[in-house]
Amino acid sequence: MTTYADYKPLTFHDAAHHFTDGNDNPRAYLERCLETIAAREPVVKAFTALNESGARAAADASAARWKAGKPLSPIDGMPVAIKDLLETKDMPTEMGCAAMKGNFPKRDNAAVWALRQAGAVILAKTVTAELGGSHPGATTNPFDKARTPGGSSSGSAAAVGANMVPVAIGTQVGGSIIRPAAYCGNFALKPTQGGINRGERLATSMSTHGPHAGCLLDMWQTAIEMAKRCGGDRGALGLMGPDTLPAAIKPNRLIVLETEGWPDVDAATKAGFSQVLRQLEAAGVSLIRRADHSFVEALERAVANGRAVCGTITGWENRWYQRGMLDAAPDGLSARAKAALAKAEAMTVDDYRAGLFARQQAQLAHAAVASLADAAITLSCLGPAPLWSGDVPGQPLAPRPTGDFVFNAPSSMLFAPVVTVPLMSVGGMPVGVQLIGQQHEDARMTGLARWVSENLAPAPAPRRR
Amino acid sequence: MTTYADYKPLTFHDAAHHFTDGNDNPRAYLERCLETIAAREPVVKAFTALNESGARAAADASAARWKAGKPLSPIDGMPVAIKDLLETKDMPTEMGCAAMKGNFPKRDNAAVWALRQAGAVILAKTVTAELGGSHPGATTNPFDKARTPGGSSSGSAAAVGANMVPVAIGTQVGGSIIRPAAYCGNFALKPTQGGINRGERLATSMSTHGPHAGCLLDMWQTAIEMAKRCGGDRGALGLMGPDTLPAAIKPNRLIVLETEGWPDVDAATKAGFSQVLRQLEAAGVSLIRRADHSFVEALERAVANGRAVCGTITGWENRWYQRGMLDAAPDGLSARAKAALAKAEAMTVDDYRAGLFARQQAQLAHAAVASLADAAITLSCLGPAPLWSGDVPGQPLAPRPTGDFVFNAPSSMLFAPVVTVPLMSVGGMPVGVQLIGQQHEDARMTGLARWVSENLAPAPAPRRR
Repeated sequence: MTTYADYKPLTFHDAAHHFTDGNDNPRAYLERCLETIAAREPVVKAFTALNESGARAAADASAARWKAGKPLSPIDGMPVAIKDLLETKDMPTEMGCAAMKGNFPKRDNAAVWALRQAGAVILAKTVTAELGGSHPGATTNPFDKARTPGGSSSGSAAAVGANMVPVAIGTQVGGSIIRPAAYCGNFALKPTQGGINRGERLATSMSTHGPHAGCLLDMWQTAIEMAKRCGGDRGALGLMGPDTLPAAIKPNRLIVLETEGWPDVDAATKAGFSQVLRQLEAAGVSLIRRADHSFVEALERAVANGRAVCGTITGWENRWYQRGMLDAAPDGLSARAKAALAKAEAMTVDDYRAGLFARQQAQLAHAAVASLADAAITLSCLGPAPLWSGDVPGQPLAPRPTGDFVFNAPSSMLFAPVVTVPLMSVGGMPVGVQLIGQQHEDARMTGLARWVSENLAPAPAPRRR
Repeated sequence: MTTYADYKPLTFHDAAHHFTDGNDNPRAYLERCLETIAAREPVVKAFTALNESGARAAADASAARWKAGKPLSPIDGMPVAIKDLLETKDMPTEMGCAAMKGNFPKRDNAAVWALRQAGAVILAKTVTAELGGSHPGATTNPFDKARTPGGSSSGSAAAVGANMVPVAIGTQVGGSIIRPAAYCGNFALKPTQGGINRGERLATSMSTHGPHAGCLLDMWQTAIEMAKRCGGDRGALGLMGPDTLPAAIKPNRLIVLETEGWPDVDAATKAGFSQVLRQLEAAGVSLIRRADHSFVEALERAVANGRAVCGTITGWENRWYQRGMLDAAPDGLSARAKAALAKAEAMTVDDYRAGLFARQQAQLAHAAVASLADAAITLSCLGPAPLWSGDVPGQPLAPRPTGDFVFNAPSSMLFAPVVTVPLMSVGGMPVGVQLIGQQHEDARMTGLARWVSENLAPAPAPRRR
């Protein structure tokens, strides 16, 4: 186990510089990843499948392209792991779900197809909480095996945090990219709703694919290479922005969002976040809070019930496919998933419409603050990843074993782009800070995140980077 | 074969009246359908699967509910056939596609689930053109076996036209409900985009489920019973309206749309449609055409390239799943589908974005005419169903073997609700007239369609009804 104080993230873009001068090559890079995997995976348990031979062949093909001076993209040769909710033609897609055991459709999700087109090496599938919900898989936090890596993109966040791959693809409906990324010390982008083509993964109205990475450059490069090739979701413009990492953007003003999560944040995390905000003010960034402007107050109120709104909308949207699964395989879902389904099946169409209305009102309240600030800033999670050692037999099921999505529900329901920056360290564990923009400001949020990560010191205690 | 002049549609609502007084029951109704199927199906070839035993059990259960005075809905006991693009737990889902042969996921599409919840008897799966595209299945037109039934909801339209079932579910992306319904003498509703929950069937941004029926009452009742139970698509309000057939609404003013199709309409069909319009004027309905108002002209221009816009958008949206299919089964797609895929794979993200922009512009142009008239009226198809006897070996593939969707692309790209009324008969074959409304005016279009069908005489030549 690496301690977080000693953590130095694995990156790809800097290694790729040496692919042209012959001092490194994609196959050697892959072999280094495989060595780390051999060392870390027995404890971290990030993967559900590993395609070593396929990855080696892809890395060799990439090496030949680099050698010939003709890489397909800047991420040609980059090992990537894919959340096991997405179909991959060379590995099974089991979704952390007993009912899906053995599912192997031999097709690529659109984003996976795009990654291959860009030359990326599809190395592994990563553990997901069951069907992208809250029932956890076996993955442990790479910085403390007694803690959750977060979810539902558990394995993607942990694989990056453990330096087993430089980039992994996660998906978020309520908080499934940003929270695990924050718990595992990743940078991550949850794009504007519709930003990356979800392919067959279309069950919900607010799910996005997004990259977890060890640095902003790999994160952005992966996102834009996908979007250039497969575009966004049906009917969406898709992620737009520069061909490589946007320049750093210093914010003039940021909205500090409390969300419904703030009262439950622990003291050390609150202290660390205050230190982040003080650094921003010291750098000349104005901060604007709910007490400062009625539009910010209106936004806070509009997202104050975010978990419930997300739960209502997503529960309804998932119920038919989950009912079909359960009918076909009565033991195919966990007790946790069955309870969620029962709740969803008690809903009416009008309950769903009320959820959509609340979401739309929140989006209007968010649009109304667009001219007030460059972005919103808030914690990416309540604090360090919670301890998790499984449900206790005979006791009620733990409510949120992969952590609380209270800081993630707002940006999900706003369809807003989010970048999380691993800016804090609390009790030796990573805690992320997120920048939330208006829809389609993905590149801008990445530029702001770059400025923040290049100009602010880690908080509360400095750590080596 | 029944001639269209002798055609009397099969209906359900009137039979259901006798389920309570003991003079009829759902099992007897089903048996009558099965008798018709035995007589007509060998030539019409509407079905890919028939679940007689399951249907009989469902009909018996329904009969018991009616006898006890507790039907689940007004369509309890109604035999329904389901287009074979939608999953059904008790019949395979093969999508008219070699690559899907044997596909049997044992799940119900959300709309199928809703029909069962309403007590409907899921009797059969119906032939679809391959993957909802243009490569035809074996179905023949119920009024002339030498002609196409239209597509892609070929079997659903033909099954209703042949009185084998009172209602069948179709789906439309470009023109796949309204055109076959018009060719087969059906009433049909293509709801506002998002009106009926598509369940797993989400690949495209402009596809809807909709009912084909022998009468407006069965059509509306089926649509609203589905929507009440499974709602609309993810993020959509879903179909709204009264619990039973809306009252007839006499229009004050109708926009007569030419679309890009008018120049290609044959003389007899043009004459028939003129007769329809003359009847409207005689009844005091004002008609407004492109020459009469610049907003109508703007709408005509905005939809003038509708086929190409629909083709661009849908081609891009379908390419990943079709590529995956083809990679897994190189002989799994027809030459026609392969050619369409190759065209889609030559596209860039920006081509797709241009298509979305054109669609959005058309929707704005449509919204702009909202206050000018009660609805738009136009033909549902170029004329009677074309002759079709298969591609000619050695010759290029016929471009549109299930007919031209030129009159259907506009309402598809407008996300508009459409009701087609079998108001015309040209050369002994049915031809439909459609009413197109603003988004969410499904019930209103049904009310207008009711007035039209109750107050206008069939055109050009009267026929017995």
